[in-house]
This record gives sequence, C-alpha cells and structure tokens, in this order.
Amino acid sequence: MREISIVGAGMTKFAKMPERDVIDLGREACIKAIKSSGVPRKDIQIAYCGTARTGQLLNRECGVGQTILLDIGISGIPVTSVGNFCASGSSALREAYLAIASGMYDVALAIGVEKLSVRKGKGLPLTSDGVTLLTALGFSPPAYFAEIATRHMYEFGTTEKQMALVTVKNRGHSRYNPNCQYQTSVTVEEVLASRPIVDPLRMLNCCPTTDGAGAILLCAKDLAWKYTDKPVDIIASSLHFGLYEKNKDMTTFNSDRASGKEAYEMAGLGPKDIDVAEVHDCFSIAEILHYEDLGFCPRGEGGPFVEQGKADIGGEVAINPSGGLLSRGHPLGGTGLAQTTEIFWQLRGEADKRQVPGARVGMTHTMGGFQDSIELADVASSCIHIYRQGW
Amino acid sequence: MREISIVGAGMTKFAKMPERDVIDLGREACIKAIKSSGVPRKDIQIAYCGTARTGQLLNRECGVGQTILLDIGISGIPVTSVGNFCASGSSALREAYLAIASGMYDVALAIGVEKLSVRKGKGLPLTSDGVTLLTALGFSPPAYFAEIATRHMYEFGTTEKQMALVTVKNRGHSRYNPNCQYQTSVTVEEVLASRPIVDPLRMLNCCPTTDGAGAILLCAKDLAWKYTDKPVDIIASSLHFGLYEKNKDMTTFNSDRASGKEAYEMAGLGPKDIDVAEVHDCFSIAEILHYEDLGFCPRGEGGPFVEQGKADIGGEVAINPSGGLLSRGHPLGGTGLAQTTEIFWQLRGEADKRQVPGARVGMTHTMGGFQDSIELADVASSCIHIYRQGW
Repeated sequence: MREISIVGAGMTKFAKMPERDVIDLGREACIKAIKSSGVPRKDIQIAYCGTARTGQLLNRECGVGQTILLDIGISGIPVTSVGNFCASGSSALREAYLAIASGMYDVALAIGVEKLSVRKGKGLPLTSDGVTLLTALGFSPPAYFAEIATRHMYEFGTTEKQMALVTVKNRGHSRYNPNCQYQTSVTVEEVLASRPIVDPLRMLNCCPTTDGAGAILLCAKDLAWKYTDKPVDIIASSLHFGLYEKNKDMTTFNSDRASGKEAYEMAGLGPKDIDVAEVHDCFSIAEILHYEDLGFCPRGEGGPFVEQGKADIGGEVAINPSGGLLSRGHPLGGTGLAQTTEIFWQLRGEADKRQVPGARVGMTHTMGGFQDSIELADVASSCIHIYRQGW
Repeated sequence: MREISIVGAGMTKFAKMPERDVIDLGREACIKAIKSSGVPRKDIQIAYCGTARTGQLLNRECGVGQTILLDIGISGIPVTSVGNFCASGSSALREAYLAIASGMYDVALAIGVEKLSVRKGKGLPLTSDGVTLLTALGFSPPAYFAEIATRHMYEFGTTEKQMALVTVKNRGHSRYNPNCQYQTSVTVEEVLASRPIVDPLRMLNCCPTTDGAGAILLCAKDLAWKYTDKPVDIIASSLHFGLYEKNKDMTTFNSDRASGKEAYEMAGLGPKDIDVAEVHDCFSIAEILHYEDLGFCPRGEGGPFVEQGKADIGGEVAINPSGGLLSRGHPLGGTGLAQTTEIFWQLRGEADKRQVPGARVGMTHTMGGFQDSIELADVASSCIHIYRQGW
C-alpha cells in the first residue's frame, strides 16, 4: 500500500463555547492545520468532515464540511460527511487515508468537529446516538460504564482508587495543555469525594461536555518533503465494530481487540513498541479496559498498571499525555483529530512541558457506540491509528 | 489504480411505506444484493451506509449501517456512515470503491437508504439539509429549480412542453419498472394541467416523496470471477462540490461539469460512448441541465434534445430508463444506489421491457446540495460513476 504522512495538524481549544458554531470551530482548526503544514490551499484535493450528531443539533446533516471549506476559500473538491459515533473524527481521518492510499488523490484534509454545549433537547443524553428505548429507560453511557466498572472490580479486584488514579494522571497532564477544558490537577481524594453519577462512577470519573474541532492534513509520503521536514507517518489504520450481546463478558471490548490486532499487524509492531498513546478515556474505567484490550498489560491488570505508574509519562507507555477526554472534554466528532493532533506534536517533539521524552511511535484510539434497541445489544466501533516519525 | 467490479445489486420497491423503518428497508436491499451476487456474508470486509437526513428523523445519526448489518448477521467489520445530501448513497459507493482501490480491502458493501414518508417536523422541506434561513423564508428546492427553469427559458427558448416531455419520457419508462412509486405514463397535457408548485414548475415536473433503499456489492476485479460471470466494472468515480454565488449563471452546474470532465478522463471515454445513464431528475428542468452539463448536447440545447427523442431508449443515449426520480421517487440517500442497481441490470441485459438494447457502457449521476445561509450561496455536490460490462 501507498505510504502516507501527516504534514499538518491543528485544533481549537476545547471548552464550552455556546457563542461559537461548528463552522467557526472547524474553520479555526483547519486554518491552524494549514498554517502548521505549509500546504497551499490549492494543493488540497479532497476533504472529509466527521461529526456524530451535529446534524441533529444544527439542522445540517451533511453541509458542515462544505461550509467550513467555503469559509476558508476552498471549493470544487470532493467533500464527504463521515459519521461513526464518538469515532467520527477518526473515521474522517481514515477515509482521507484510504482516498490517498487508492492513488486517486495525493493531499487530503480531515476535519472533526462537534458542539455539545447547546443542545436542542434539554436533558437528552450526550451519546453520539441517543437511541430511543434503552436511553429513555435511563440506560445512558455512565450507567453502562458503571456496570462495566462494577464487573471489573468483581472479577479482578480493581478498586475505586485505581479508577481515580486514571483521572489523577490525566488531569495531571492537563496542567500543561492549554487546549483542555480542565487544566488543573486533582487528587484521589477529590475524585472519590466528587458527586456520584452512577455508582461506582463519580463526576471526576466522567469526561466533561465540550465543544471543539481538530483538523489533519495528510499526503502521500513521497510528497511530504514538499511541505515539512518532519512528517509523521500513518503506519496503520483499523476500524471494527463489535456486537456485545447480553450476558457477554462486560470487561473487554472485542472491537478494541480486533482493531488493535489489525493495527499492530499492519504496522509490524506490538504494544511494547508504542511510546505514547491517546486512548478513549470517556470514563476512567474505559481507559483501564483499553490498557488490557490494546495489550499494554494482561487482562485484569489494568488497575495495577495505572497504580504502578506504568501509564505515566516516563512509564512503560505514556497514556493520554494531553490530559485525555477526562481533561480535554469530549465533543464526539471533535475528539479523534484532537488525539491525532496531540500525537503529531508528541512525535515532532512539540508538546512542550507534557512532551513524552524520546517518543517515536504513537497511537490514537477512539471508540464510539450505541445501544441497539432492536437487537437489545450494545454496538461499538473502535478506530485505531499508529504513527511513526517519518524523517 | 486497482480495477473494481460490481458483482451484486439490489433495491427495495420505492414507495411511501410509513410502516417500515430504515433498518427494514436497508436489510431488504442488502439481502437482495447478496443473493444476486453469490458473495457469502463472511467475504464482506467493509461497509458504508449513505443517508442524508435519516439521523434527524430517527435519532440514529450513525448507527443505521451497523444495525442493518447486525440484522443480516454481519458484525466485526468496519462500517462508516456517509453523508452528501442527495448524493449520500453514491458517496457510500464511492467510499467503498476507494477502500478497495487502496488495496486494504477486497470486497465491500455500499448501502443507501432514506425514509421520507414520516417526518418529525410537519411541513419541513424535503431537502437533505433543511438549512435554516433561506428555507425558512420559502426558498425551497422547487423555488430554486423554478428560477433555473425561468432563466433557461429566457436564455435558450426552452419551453414548458419540453420540460413536460422529460416527465413524459421518464414516466413512460416507469411502466416497465415495478420498483417505481409511480408506474403509469402521463401526457404532456397532463403535466401542463397538473397543479402549480412554483411557476413554471408543476406537480408532475417534481419528483415525489418516497421511502427506499439500494445496496451494491463490489470487489477487486481480479476476484469478481469467484462470484459472477457478468461483473460490471466501475471505470470512473468522481465527486466535486461547487459554489454558486449570487449573480452566477444559473443555467449550468459547475459541479456537474467538473465531475463529468473528471469521470470521462478517468474512463478514457466521452459522452458519445455512454449508452445509458441514470441522471438526477429531481425536477424535469434538472434533467435538461444535466444533458448539457454532462456533454450529451451543447449548452442551451437540452430542450430540443428531449423533444427530438435523443434521450429516449433507442435515442442517442437512453436517459433514465428506470423512470428516474420523477417516477421512482427520491428518498435522498436511497436514490444513488437505486441508480447503480438499474445500470447494473441494464449492462447485464436484465432490465426486462425497459432494457436499453446493446447497452455496454453506463453512467450514474446524483447531485445534492443545500443553501448556505452563511455565505448566502448555493452549494451542490455532483457524484458521477461510469460503468462498463466487465466480461
């Protein structure tokens, strides 16, 4: 397959910004990505825009990408809207990657954006797909992840303290990331004393509601030298959706495992080779499951893994040096390309005080899902990319 | 680039079916496509689902494709939602095409589906993107195409009778297509006597509101022999979005021209080589513009082109032998893959009494757009595919 490099990346600050719309957010991310890349607008041949539920909110199911591009002076190229729940931004990157890999295009722009601070329906769940029956009955994402946490505690002895330590680690990183919604550290005690959401999850175990956008410029690797001395290569891209039937093992995501396996095979690498990873810590327990499903530690050992500092900057693999979703917030379609932007900066040594020393290989992982009220089952899509310094 | 073939296609009947949901419609189309192909479910490696506004209606922004696949017993593969206004289904086909072209996948399924017969907001316009300001002011698609018709009549002497003849031709074809919402012929007099919508457009100049789905199975050409003796090759795929600023020439779509040019170049063919085409006749005047923009006749001569029978089966190029959107109806995301299904049947000689004799090369053309209330401009995406008998 054709080799592909990232030559520019940009993101807005993630925050509640009720006065800004998705077009404004996407424009800022695109302009930053373009400025960081040296790619002239005229070189951009195709674009994808990932959103999970912006359509429902803003009555623009498909036009977000086109409108953003018009605003920055680009028209005439193919622009396609992409959706995949919370993995919508990552899926936009993946389609851009496939478009270049096909040989039909050389330079592509991927955008991911979402606005959650202003909602049409007050009290609607923040899931990317507020599917009717189960969520109407109260089975929202916090309830789902609380069940997972309870089972993980029962099966493996994982503790509330260990879950709290995920938040403590990520919020610790956030102090050095001006793009995060929260930029202050918290203690284990503060996490455990925060208000209950669904037992055993407390407020600080859950990612906040946020607005934001990210954008990535990528091109065929043999052209990357035109734009930058420090391209970041995408060496794997995988996506799988998994079905989680009732009575299944709740403490593992088969979509994570399938996507992880494919990505490692494609990259010719294993978990030990990853220096830095941005993973989908929508809830602290989710990050613990991802350690296990992505092979950073054995099944059931995610709790001790974070407790022993192995997920710290300077540990075995630096997980969420950006602060993760728990600090940055999670604007659904906006998240994936903020993760990729962080890895782009990390591998180029541009991550300032949160820099992972010597980071050469990075990973992003987003997971999006919904509860299928027809099948009475849970569906999740895991999208993984692996990146390497390309110079 | 890797060569790609269609090995199976299927569609539901298009009709108002308020009792059926998008999952049910999509499932039927997929099962028909799979049955027509001989592709075992386990061979399908990736899927795309195109919808324009189903999310807003059914509270399922992203999960339509995954739920359809679960219903037909497929999980674990990558599934991505794709949107591009009325060209959403065609864009799903295009992403499937690019995914195989990349070399990462060999067999892909594209789904396009929409349900318009039941709407959340009574009286909302049927555009794929009910953008706020202009449509709230009454500038709906019929108003837009009425302006175009008026200008085309002024510039080129196009007549109401010529526009009516587009409907007469397409409704004539529909008599032999059991998948159409309307399956009866109409006369010029009936079109001209039908109730006014926006002058000069009358009811029978406008496509009806419909529910429906289509599905296409495609694979690398070198594998097609495993599944069928009569693969249909995709020899071009193009997509462009164009901006139509105020005071521009209203009688041509630059997105059509750009996509047409690219598709012809990619196929190494010209308009004269197309035996049969399904084009986006959302309004009769639209089909006349497409004749011109796609090069079937010179600028301004679309009216005489249809009047002289050149767009008939047996004419220079058979346009919309299926009956087109004017007969089949237009369920936004469902349209593109119904067009491709028709061309698949036509090139395989399976189109029954509406068969275009000797059809070897076919084209599909869908156009989707919206009015951008920020730029106060019109935006359209034109998606074109060219197909050839692959045996």
